[in-house]
Amino acid sequence: MASYNLLLLPGDGIGPEVMAEVEKLVRWFTKTGIARFETEKDLVGGCAYDAHGVAITDAAMDRAQAADAVLFGAVGGPKWDKVPYEHRPEAGLLRLRKDLGLFANLRPAICYPALADASSLKRELVEGLDIVIVRELTGGVYFGEPKEIVTLENGEKRAVDTQLYTTHEIERIARVAFELAKVRRNKVSSAEKRNVMRTGVLWNEVVTRVHKEEYPDVELEHVLADNCGMQLVRNPKQYDVIVTDNLFGDILSDVAAMLTGSLGMLPSASLGAEDPATGKRKALYEPVHGSAPDIAGKGLANPIAMIGSFAMALRYSFGLVKEADMLEKAIANVLDSGLRTKDIAGPGVNAVGTGEVGDAIVKEM
Amino acid sequence: MASYNLLLLPGDGIGPEVMAEVEKLVRWFTKTGIARFETEKDLVGGCAYDAHGVAITDAAMDRAQAADAVLFGAVGGPKWDKVPYEHRPEAGLLRLRKDLGLFANLRPAICYPALADASSLKRELVEGLDIVIVRELTGGVYFGEPKEIVTLENGEKRAVDTQLYTTHEIERIARVAFELAKVRRNKVSSAEKRNVMRTGVLWNEVVTRVHKEEYPDVELEHVLADNCGMQLVRNPKQYDVIVTDNLFGDILSDVAAMLTGSLGMLPSASLGAEDPATGKRKALYEPVHGSAPDIAGKGLANPIAMIGSFAMALRYSFGLVKEADMLEKAIANVLDSGLRTKDIAGPGVNAVGTGEVGDAIVKEM
Ligand SMILES: CC(C)[C@H](C(=O)O)[C@@H](O)C(=O)O
Ligand SMILES: CC(C)[C@H](C(=O)O)[C@@H](O)C(=O)O
Repeated sequence: MASYNLLLLPGDGIGPEVMAEVEKLVRWFTKTGIARFETEKDLVGGCAYDAHGVAITDAAMDRAQAADAVLFGAVGGPKWDKVPYEHRPEAGLLRLRKDLGLFANLRPAICYPALADASSLKRELVEGLDIVIVRELTGGVYFGEPKEIVTLENGEKRAVDTQLYTTHEIERIARVAFELAKVRRNKVSSAEKRNVMRTGVLWNEVVTRVHKEEYPDVELEHVLADNCGMQLVRNPKQYDVIVTDNLFGDILSDVAAMLTGSLGMLPSASLGAEDPATGKRKALYEPVHGSAPDIAGKGLANPIAMIGSFAMALRYSFGLVKEADMLEKAIANVLDSGLRTKDIAGPGVNAVGTGEVGDAIVKEM
Repeated sequence: MASYNLLLLPGDGIGPEVMAEVEKLVRWFTKTGIARFETEKDLVGGCAYDAHGVAITDAAMDRAQAADAVLFGAVGGPKWDKVPYEHRPEAGLLRLRKDLGLFANLRPAICYPALADASSLKRELVEGLDIVIVRELTGGVYFGEPKEIVTLENGEKRAVDTQLYTTHEIERIARVAFELAKVRRNKVSSAEKRNVMRTGVLWNEVVTRVHKEEYPDVELEHVLADNCGMQLVRNPKQYDVIVTDNLFGDILSDVAAMLTGSLGMLPSASLGAEDPATGKRKALYEPVHGSAPDIAGKGLANPIAMIGSFAMALRYSFGLVKEADMLEKAIANVLDSGLRTKDIAGPGVNAVGTGEVGDAIVKEM
């Protein structure tokens, strides 16, 4: 039986609750003998700060480096609003992304048919929606230097962030987008602000060249990031794969996720480069939703995004494609059966708890 | 009869067509003797580049500096996709904003009741929507230096943009937002990415202080920019005034505008600081929509956003508040009468042309 190393980082808020449901599936896999997952667990975010004074320890980073994949819950909450900037909960996530070299963030925005009415958009605009945002995750304004606040002579402060992209950073994320489009609907939309930003000019230039030289058969369009935000609201189905930088990707993927009405349902994958020697790539999987401190600890959270993230891990990190399909089908079946957590219950439907949804999915398997 | 200096910069695409409708109103004002507008006209954007090799001439800039207000149409189009970066059409607009010191961009997102069904959102979510995005317009990543593309030793290129904010830039835009909230529903939502950007940290800190010291009676909330994008889609009516930086404002205001279903209807005002000696402020008024090259020259464009921008000029630059109310009422009446350009006609409605809508509004006056 194949054996894999999985690091679980539940984090804060509803993170531990939704991770517990994935652990049920891990046990199911071991029991059925399909695959064995050796799991380790560690702290990240606010809970790591409370325990160790940092958002993630070096030891946890070492474990992440050694793991075949990392499953990440969520971080943050009002409790840590006042911790020093470099130790804020998000710093743990950012360090994981950067140090593991997870430059490609895949964020599907799928509208589950059973949930189309939960969208704030009209049903016909989102029914059947299936797009992926490919977000660059280790560059741009998130990591560029200088990044500082200085006090000027006149007593004022001046804050600086630096948006920075080099050719190869754009090339490799463009390739991820084109490869993905090839197995989907064959269309890439590249979003930037070339009319204002030099990084947008370079982005546009490099994506255009990679397209011409390596993927001439994929349809490519360029769209200004502000217009992309508009178009996502106007007619999201015009898109297939959207490739964009770290900051635009942050906002546009949140807008796209919200369109689906299925925010508590959306998984994401953050992937590194393939190691030419082993064919392996570092990877972290996390739900698109946040730590939702308001409902944490109450057993109300929807575990489907977290479980869907595990399905993505099966697919991308462990090559268990059939099993990933199976798990995604199990999720869909449970939804079809009418079982819902509160966030997607809709009027008149009796909502069930986090654990019940997880149990039902295991049972479907 | 009071007399004012108005510089008209119709620009490219549908700019000239929609500006022509404002000129009808200008003539009406002179004829009725309410106010005299001395208008001058100049080039900006692609047409200025074609004529002079720059996106705006120094002479046009001098006129803009001297005018009581500038009315701006729209710039850009595929024709100028290949012009050198520093001469691209948008450079004209950016120079106007920067050199006139127009740091405060007010972008109302209003859902006209007659058009609520044109929104892609469900009617109940947008009906009656009335929010304003206050966007910082002369700072941030739009103007920060370094802003360049350099070729590295290994032949790769590296592009840099710099996001930069100082205390007083944030203070003055925060005050604009709080003042506006006071005459509206008394709530300001400040959007940034303090969890990732140092400019977001400073933004949050300064807005919090200005609130505490100067506007404790206005409700203030802080929201992460990505979450703000989500919340705009989920439930836009939770907002009153949103204050945010140049880049986030660009995207969020486009999303907000699209929500209303009234994109061709939305005006905007860009204001400078009040001159303490004269009490005057520099100002530019422009529609939120772009140059729409696909329909340019066909008489199909909706002139209401441009006419509404003129109404904002009456209100903010000329103190003609009664007349601004009158003009806005005239717009609403024409809409109620069922007259629509194609963009808002909806199925089964006979669309009319740009000129007919303009004429009808003049007639209503
Ligand atoms: C938590 C935060 C640092 C993060 C980001 O801005 O990337 C989040 O918003 C996301 O989209 O994963
Ligand atoms: C035309 C462009 C430079 C401009 C901007 O990015 O500010 C536009 O998108 C806007 O929002 O006014």
